Amino acid sequence: MSILVVGSVAYDTVDTPFGRAEKVLGGSASFFSVAASFFTPVNLVAVVGDDFGAEALAAFEGRPIDLHGLERAAGKTFHWQGRYSYDLNARETVCTDLNVFESFRPRIPERYRRSRHVFLGNIDPVLQREVLDQVDGPRLVACDTMNFWISGKPEELRRTLARVDVLLINDAEARQLSGEWNVVKAARAIRALGPRTLVVKKGEHGVLMFSDEGSFAAPAYPLEEVFDPTGAGDTFAGGFLGYLAGCAEVDEAALRRAVVMGSTLASFCVEAFSLDRLRRLTRPEIDGRYRLFRRLTQFEEI
Amino acid sequence: MSILVVGSVAYDTVDTPFGRAEKVLGGSASFFSVAASFFTPVNLVAVVGDDFGAEALAAFEGRPIDLHGLERAAGKTFHWQGRYSYDLNARETVCTDLNVFESFRPRIPERYRRSRHVFLGNIDPVLQREVLDQVDGPRLVACDTMNFWISGKPEELRRTLARVDVLLINDAEARQLSGEWNVVKAARAIRALGPRTLVVKKGEHGVLMFSDEGSFAAPAYPLEEVFDPTGAGDTFAGGFLGYLAGCAEVDEAALRRAVVMGSTLASFCVEAFSLDRLRRLTRPEIDGRYRLFRRLTQFEEI
Repeated sequence: MSILVVGSVAYDTVDTPFGRAEKVLGGSASFFSVAASFFTPVNLVAVVGDDFGAEALAAFEGRPIDLHGLERAAGKTFHWQGRYSYDLNARETVCTDLNVFESFRPRIPERYRRSRHVFLGNIDPVLQREVLDQVDGPRLVACDTMNFWISGKPEELRRTLARVDVLLINDAEARQLSGEWNVVKAARAIRALGPRTLVVKKGEHGVLMFSDEGSFAAPAYPLEEVFDPTGAGDTFAGGFLGYLAGCAEVDEAALRRAVVMGSTLASFCVEAFSLDRLRRLTRPEIDGRYRLFRRLTQFEEI
Repeated sequence: MSILVVGSVAYDTVDTPFGRAEKVLGGSASFFSVAASFFTPVNLVAVVGDDFGAEALAAFEGRPIDLHGLERAAGKTFHWQGRYSYDLNARETVCTDLNVFESFRPRIPERYRRSRHVFLGNIDPVLQREVLDQVDGPRLVACDTMNFWISGKPEELRRTLARVDVLLINDAEARQLSGEWNVVKAARAIRALGPRTLVVKKGEHGVLMFSDEGSFAAPAYPLEEVFDPTGAGDTFAGGFLGYLAGCAEVDEAALRRAVVMGSTLASFCVEAFSLDRLRRLTRPEIDGRYRLFRRLTQFEEI
C-alpha cells in the first residue's frame, strides 16, 4: 500500500571531519522516499528549481517512487549547508537557502489522493493540514516537525497534530513541544494532543516509542564508522513507515518491528554522504542488519 | 558465592530541583553492597571516620553484608557534596572532603580472601592492585575508575586493567581512556588493555556491553520521576555483579541478564535520595521490573 510523502528535495553541502560533499542530493523527502521504497511504492510531492539536474534524479530511478508530484519551479533548488564537529553529534547549520521551497504549496496529484499512508515532512503545519485536506481517508498519517514551527506556529501545529496518528520527532523537540523535561511526561503530554503513537529519536542513543501499549526502547546500531549523520532521521521515518505500509495490521508488534526497521535503514544512511549508501543497499543487507539488531538487544528471562 | 567490594562509604549532601538531603549515607561501596546483597553475600572493605553514626550503618543491617572490613579511623568520614540542575544530567560537585578516605589503604580481612568475586571501586589504581594481591584466585574481577585516575595515573591504571575481567565505566571515561570518540573503537582499544568485558554506562541512555560475543545494548528504564541520580552507577555495578555471582556460569547470556539486572536496580536507586529506595526494595519488585525491561525491549523477527 502506497505512501504519500510531502517534504523537501534539496541540495546539501556537508562538511564532516572525514571530508566534504558539495551540492549533493538531500532533503527530507529524498531520504524518506528511497528508504521507504525498499518496502512499498512511494508518491513523492516536493519542489525543485530549474537547476535540479538529472544526476540528482538518478537516486530515485529504478525504484517504485512516483515523481509525478515533483514540481519544477523557476529559481534555485533548496540548498542546505552544514558542518559537523568531530563527535558528529553537534551540527552547525552554515546556511539555509530556501529558494523555491520558500513558496512551496503542496499540490497533491489526483493519482496520489488515495494513498493509504501519508508522511508529512517538516514543513509549515498549515501546509501539512492542506495536504491532509487533499487526501482521501488514509489508514495512517505520520508527521515530523521542528523547533522553528514549535515556537513559531504553536497553535497551527496543535491543529495539525490533532489529525496525526504518529509523530516522529527528536528528544529536544519533544521537550520543547511539551514543556516537560522528563521524556515520559513529555510523551504523555504530546499524545494528549492527538498522536496515538509518539516516536522520539535520540540519534546515537536510539529511539523511544510511546503508544497505547506502553513504551518501547530500541538502541541505535553501534557503528564503528559514522561518516555523515545527515538524513538519518528522515531515513528512519522512511524505513519505519515503509515497513508499516507493508504490514497487514498496524498493531503494537508491527510498530515495534517498524521502529527497528527504521533504525536499520538509518544505520546504513550514516555510513556515507548523501544517499550514497542507501542507493547501493540491498534487501538482504537490510534483513541481515535487522537480525543483528535482535542479537544486539536480546536477553533471557530470569 | 560472595563478593568482595572495596570502595567508599561516605556522607553525601545532595541538592536536586526537588529538595536537599544533608549528610546522608553515600559512597560507591554503600550503593554497591546493598544492591548486590539482594543476590549474594557481600564482604565490604572501606573506611569511615569517628563521626560515622549508627543510623547510617542501619542501611546494611539485616542484609548479608559483612562489615568486618569496615575500618574506623580517627577523623571525619569522606563527605561529598553535589548539586543537580533541572535536567538531572548535569552534576556539579560543590565539594569533596576526602577526610579519612585520603589515607585509605585497603586491608583485606583473612575471612574475605577467598571471595570468589571482586569489585574494585573507584580508588587509586595502585590500591586496586594491592587489593588483588591480597585475594586468592577470584573467579571474576570487576573494576570502576574515573577521569582523575585516567589522566593522573595512566600507567598504573593500565597495570591494573591487565588484571581485570570486567571494566564498568561511563561513556565519557571510555572515550578518555581510549582516546577514541567512537564508542565501538573505544571498546576495542580498552578490551585490548585487559578487560574481556567492557560495560559502558550512559545514564538515561542505558548501557552498552562489549564482550567476546559482540555487543549488547540495554536501555535505561524510562521513569516518570527521577529524583536523585547519585549512586546509580554503583547500584548498577552492585546489581550486575551480585546477579552474576549467583550464576553457575559467567557466559554471554548471564552477562546480558546481569546488565539488565544492574539497570533494574539502578532504576530504583534514582527514585529517592541516598539508599532510601534500595532499603525498602523487595525481590518481587526487582523481578517485576526486570520483566518490564523485557517488555520494553522485545520485538519480533521479520
